[in-house]
Parts: sequence; C-alpha cells; structure tokens
Amino acid sequence: MKHVRFSDVLLEDVNVDGAKNAKIRWLISNKDGAERFSMRMFEVAPEGNTPYHIHDFEHEIFVLDGQGMLVTENGESPMKPWDVIYVDPNLMHQFKNTGDKPLIFLCSIPNEVKKVPKRNPFGGGKVNNC
Amino acid sequence: MKHVRFSDVLLEDVNVDGAKNAKIRWLISNKDGAERFSMRMFEVAPEGNTPYHIHDFEHEIFVLDGQGMLVTENGESPMKPWDVIYVDPNLMHQFKNTGDKPLIFLCSIPNEVKKVPKRNPFGGGKVNNC
Repeated sequence: MKHVRFSDVLLEDVNVDGAKNAKIRWLISNKDGAERFSMRMFEVAPEGNTPYHIHDFEHEIFVLDGQGMLVTENGESPMKPWDVIYVDPNLMHQFKNTGDKPLIFLCSIPNEVKKVPKRNPFGGGKVNNC
Repeated sequence: MKHVRFSDVLLEDVNVDGAKNAKIRWLISNKDGAERFSMRMFEVAPEGNTPYHIHDFEHEIFVLDGQGMLVTENGESPMKPWDVIYVDPNLMHQFKNTGDKPLIFLCSIPNEVKKVPKRNPFGGGKVNNC
C-alpha cells in the first residue's frame, strides 16, 4: 500500500522531443507494485506543451488545475479542471497550456505498451509516454 | 476519443452490501473503448462510507475534494485533496467521509478482475468494485 501527498513524488522533466516546459510525477507505477497501469501527473507551465505525437496505447486523463487545449488530428478542445478525457491508441495528440498558471492533469497509461514506428523517420530522443 | 465534464457522466448508487451514502460515476470504461482499465469517481456523502471489503485487484486513487479516512487491515490514514493512494490486491479496505461535505476521489481499476471468495460465507449482494 502507498498513501502520500502528490508533492512527495519526484517531479521530473518530460524528456521527449517536442515537449516544452512539461514535467511529470509518476504517482503510482510498477515501483509501487502496480503491475497493470500507472498514474502520472503532468505539470505544463504557461506557454508549455507536451509533444504532438502518437503511440499505440491509451490515455485516461483527469484535469486538475489550469487551462489548456487538447489538440488531436480531429481538432482542438479546451481543457478545464474536472474535465475527463480518453485518448484512443493510435491518435495524434498534444496538450498545451493556454492559461497563466500551470496546467496540471492526471494521465494514466497501461504498463505494457508496444511503441509504434514514428511517422517521422528522422525523429529521435527518449520517449516517456506523454 | 472522449472529452466531457465529470458531471456529464451518470451518477449511480454504489450497490454493495456495507456501502452507505456512496455514489459512483464511471468516467472512462470499456464503453468508451478503454479495454484495459477504468477510471471511476466516487462521491461519498457526510457520514457515508464504502464497504469494508477485499478483492484481488488493485485501486489507484487520487483524492479530489473533502476529508476522509482510509481504513485497511493495517490501520487508518486520513485522506485529503491531492493525496495519492495505491491499495494492493487482497487487502481489506474502506473509505469513510469524516468531513461535512462530500468526499470525492478518483479510483481506477483494471477491467479484467477475478473475484476472490468472500471471507464471510453468509455475505451476499452485488459487487461493484469500490
């Protein structure tokens, strides 16, 4: 069992090409014994964003604070606190902060993932699932 | 893809023996295409609680509002907004509202679960995974 404050969990940079001023806390992961899926918290600073990218696993998202924009290949959709978002596998997506304070949201993912080939063969860098 | 307000999702009674004044919204589930795990929101009214029970799947919890108490076979632990809780499979647990407004928390579970035999052979009723 684990019971902590969110702020007790390490805040790390999102090291993905295309990410800007985005940080992540792995709130619950396989390090805690959670074998099947992980809960992460993203903090995207004003003018920051996650990369516009694609992968073959889903996102289950709950917005906690701030204002943002969800961008997918289907269009744009404003994000506000207590919004619920499900992003299907294999859908291009991005989260942008459009406000003046951090955009904070939970984003859970399955632990077992298969990476899809990048659409841009010249793309590189580490992937950490945002 | 799905992008909704939490309040757009049906609020249902928790129909489990031992639950009191507890409601649930299935924010993201296999009805949305989420095959591997589901995100639910619980709303427990003042003086309400989920049942003290056990099952062989995990909970990944994020507290959103209100004040409560997590009760497990290992003891009690106060719940407050932005607390993070991981409940291991096969651990007795319960969530109680100890405040004067609703205790609201997210609780994600895997979709594929195996129910463990109830410890009380005289127990009955429907199970809906709180």
